[in-house]
Amino acid sequence: MRMETGVCVLHLFLSPPADGRSVDVDGAKATIEWAREHDCQVVTAAMLGHKGDIAVMGLSPDVTTLRHLQTGLQKAGLEVTDSYLSITEVSEYAPGLPEEMLNARLYPQLPPEGKPAFCFYPMSKRREAHANWYATGYEERKEMMYEHGSSGRKFAGRIVQLITGSTGLDEHEWGVTLFGENLEAIKDVVYTLRFDQASSIYGEFGDFYVGYLADITEVL
Amino acid sequence: MRMETGVCVLHLFLSPPADGRSVDVDGAKATIEWAREHDCQVVTAAMLGHKGDIAVMGLSPDVTTLRHLQTGLQKAGLEVTDSYLSITEVSEYAPGLPEEMLNARLYPQLPPEGKPAFCFYPMSKRREAHANWYATGYEERKEMMYEHGSSGRKFAGRIVQLITGSTGLDEHEWGVTLFGENLEAIKDVVYTLRFDQASSIYGEFGDFYVGYLADITEVL
Amino acid sequence: MRMETGVCVLHLFLSPPADGRSVDVDGAKATIEWAREHDCQVVTAAMLGHKGDIAVMGLSPDVTTLRHLQTGLQKAGLEVTDSYLSITEVSEYAPGLPEEMLNARLYPQLPPEGKPAFCFYPMSKRREAHANWYATGYEERKEMMYEHGSSGRKFAGRIVQLITGSTGLDEHEWGVTLFGENLEAIKDVVYTLRFDQASSIYGEFGDFYVGYLADITEVL
Amino acid sequence: MRMETGVCVLHLFLSPPADGRSVDVDGAKATIEWAREHDCQVVTAAMLGHKGDIAVMGLSPDVTTLRHLQTGLQKAGLEVTDSYLSITEVSEYAPGLPEEMLNARLYPQLPPEGKPAFCFYPMSKRREAHANWYATGYEERKEMMYEHGSSGRKFAGRIVQLITGSTGLDEHEWGVTLFGENLEAIKDVVYTLRFDQASSIYGEFGDFYVGYLADITEVL
Amino acid sequence: MRMETGVCVLHLFLSPPADGRSVDVDGAKATIEWAREHDCQVVTAAMLGHKGDIAVMGLSPDVTTLRHLQTGLQKAGLEVTDSYLSITEVSEYAPGLPEEMLNARLYPQLPPEGKPAFCFYPMSKRREAHANWYATGYEERKEMMYEHGSSGRKFAGRIVQLITGSTGLDEHEWGVTLFGENLEAIKDVVYTLRFDQASSIYGEFGDFYVGYLADITEVL
Repeated sequence: MRMETGVCVLHLFLSPPADGRSVDVDGAKATIEWAREHDCQVVTAAMLGHKGDIAVMGLSPDVTTLRHLQTGLQKAGLEVTDSYLSITEVSEYAPGLPEEMLNARLYPQLPPEGKPAFCFYPMSKRREAHANWYATGYEERKEMMYEHGSSGRKFAGRIVQLITGSTGLDEHEWGVTLFGENLEAIKDVVYTLRFDQASSIYGEFGDFYVGYLADITEVL
Repeated sequence: MRMETGVCVLHLFLSPPADGRSVDVDGAKATIEWAREHDCQVVTAAMLGHKGDIAVMGLSPDVTTLRHLQTGLQKAGLEVTDSYLSITEVSEYAPGLPEEMLNARLYPQLPPEGKPAFCFYPMSKRREAHANWYATGYEERKEMMYEHGSSGRKFAGRIVQLITGSTGLDEHEWGVTLFGENLEAIKDVVYTLRFDQASSIYGEFGDFYVGYLADITEVL
Repeated sequence: MRMETGVCVLHLFLSPPADGRSVDVDGAKATIEWAREHDCQVVTAAMLGHKGDIAVMGLSPDVTTLRHLQTGLQKAGLEVTDSYLSITEVSEYAPGLPEEMLNARLYPQLPPEGKPAFCFYPMSKRREAHANWYATGYEERKEMMYEHGSSGRKFAGRIVQLITGSTGLDEHEWGVTLFGENLEAIKDVVYTLRFDQASSIYGEFGDFYVGYLADITEVL
Repeated sequence: MRMETGVCVLHLFLSPPADGRSVDVDGAKATIEWAREHDCQVVTAAMLGHKGDIAVMGLSPDVTTLRHLQTGLQKAGLEVTDSYLSITEVSEYAPGLPEEMLNARLYPQLPPEGKPAFCFYPMSKRREAHANWYATGYEERKEMMYEHGSSGRKFAGRIVQLITGSTGLDEHEWGVTLFGENLEAIKDVVYTLRFDQASSIYGEFGDFYVGYLADITEVL
Repeated sequence: MRMETGVCVLHLFLSPPADGRSVDVDGAKATIEWAREHDCQVVTAAMLGHKGDIAVMGLSPDVTTLRHLQTGLQKAGLEVTDSYLSITEVSEYAPGLPEEMLNARLYPQLPPEGKPAFCFYPMSKRREAHANWYATGYEERKEMMYEHGSSGRKFAGRIVQLITGSTGLDEHEWGVTLFGENLEAIKDVVYTLRFDQASSIYGEFGDFYVGYLADITEVL
């Protein structure tokens, strides 16, 4: 099953088996190689803490390839402890972008240079009594997104971000992947943006997964 | 135990055992065959992420057959990581439908042609201070459901949906099964409908389970 | 430890061990027999989905017997995946019942004839800003319970229900066990009652456990 | 590490290992004996349901002894499925108590005679918009606690209770341990107190753990 | 990957494997030694209850070293049951501190003398309708933080605290690590501060992890 436009993005968080069985490291590496040869970008990171030791982020127009990537890692003995499914998209608040910018959003080239810190978190917009994003008019939402976007652009040199859509695909409505110079950059941008109206009033955040770009052997 | 009208629908999400024991693939396939020969439709899908590798959706007027389907898959070594139980129903907002349409809802024929993307999620209607669906009059609810229905019909060519009732049967009040041309179609319809009053104000959504139609051997 | 009046009710939801070890089926059956010979009613059901394959509902004035029932099932290799503890009670909104009706509530004889569908769920009354059951006067609560009771009685032929008290004993304040003609009857009664003020405004529901009456060997 | 005044209270909820390995029953008993010889009271109970088969409640001025008690039970093969940490305290609403009553609260002698029913639950006070205990004045809180206390005293013959402080030590702000004549007494007191303003408006309750006083061999 | 200023702080909560396999105690100790030799402070504690038997808190400017510390403990057979990731920071409400105080916050020397009680919990500031910290002006927030700070300073002799930033790095926005004379000191400070406006109205607390400073062999 293929995408019509853009790519499908699968974030996998994995760990060696809890019962001590060993991982087929070569098999895991071969699976990642195979995916890269089949129209699939694969970003890997060593993660910190209990939510999975390794992150494998796959991006491909072919959803079947992403599933085979997952199956290969599992058959090599890694357990998928968590995951997130989303697709690239052009924001409805950014129509009329030049084709180059459209392509950068639909077909991102990852990872960026010189940004080893890796962070993923999902988010949604609130539908509460006093703050219902989906009952708010388009113009008002667009204004808030512009404020939010310009806050984010102040971190342009220190952070590269990818926002992917997941309504109907996973628990939240968007996935946010950040690549930063270091962990301070990650913390600074997320903390700063939290004061924007789009976040302070309307943002709802899932779990945060943080580590640094590395080969999967870094932790095996 | 049989249904009086309509069919019972059991969504099973399954994975190979966490401790590495192998799955009896032939046994699992034979169980599905057996169910199909006993008045049970079975839809299978390869799923993405950590919430279960395989989806097996059974529809039968005989609840016992569905339980035997589940038992057979478990005895073949698959673990049921999640599930959802519901029954087909005619919406109270759609009385007086012609018999053909009634039958399509009570006795759906699945899967539809040319819709490989598979999505399941459960949903409920809110009972909050400012938005209590069950304390809202029938006419008002009906109007919101009409708006919601016509939003959905705009996706008629790209999506086939089945809404089944689960009040008293499982954690949410309805199960929604979507078959789409691709993942974009799934995301587009769920995102668009979220702006309808029935969703933005009253909708409460459970987890989303997403994959593509495939034989269970796809991931084993 | 014995009850002073009424019986203690223990709902156990069980599954074969996740690691594939076999269950001592004869041992499990012998335990149930033993309990029945020791002043304990035992209702068993085959359940649908991932929340436990078997339900064993024990009712006894002797709490120790219920614990021995649980221990025997565990020693036979079954895992208790979930459970609920409650006791029979006479509702404070139903004083002055004739002794026969009192006895039917304190000492129910289960399962009823011709009602194979089995459903259990726990529930509480809300203590929110706009809807605090426990800050509502007795007369008002009584009126709502009367409305609720008469809604329920419309299902008298299709459903038998047992409501047991669990404040201080388990996570919710009451346990509801339903025996129905079929799954439609279960769904119809719970859906209908949800529109009563006692449910729509004040009801809080836990998980729903659903199956059909059967010997434990049905799924082993 | 020792307490300055009062004792530290560790509630452990334990089960035999899920994979069927046997428990060293003698080792577990010896650990409890050892703790009792080292300035530690140990109350044990057989519990009902899935939240742990055995409760071991240790009270000691020496926190290290409590940790050794836990380690010994674990080394004997028991798994700690849940726990709660708190310390005895004199309520800020009960200053100027005679020394005998102070001592009864700081250095309780457990279990009491003739109260075999055992119940533990943690609780907190709400900090919501309409009901913020911590933004309420001392006099008003004190009045509510007096009403609450006199409701509780009506159960004096049937129930013995111990309230211990856990702010900063575990998820809720207090732990409540009840010893009752039977399960009806447990239910009656908790249900009755729920109508007090301190509970109906401000109370937040965690899980309830219920069983009866017994040697740990009761369920092994 | 290194920090630009300050140190990265990784709290690991660990237990021996659930399936009874033994831990390589020497390997675990050697890993901690290795980290200490590689610019990493390591604080260890014996914890009480089910949330992990051992706490290992690592502080290093080199994030890679922290990951290697985690990997070494895992390879020695310990399971990471929970964790928290944060970085040292200078509060935005405390600008213009003398360099010595800045350094104490960015480069803390742990553990302090004579404070064996160990407590960790994460916290966030609320973004609710009536209490949205991030929609509150800087001056008002600063005033509340001053009140909060002076409440805390009253415990200066009994408690040493470290507050680290985790927005974008983990589930809450700050991590709080307390070292106390004893458990009473921990309870007293957290209980007292809960009445400050910054906590009573705006504070949201995660789980509390409590134990006492000890070598990891204390519980192995």
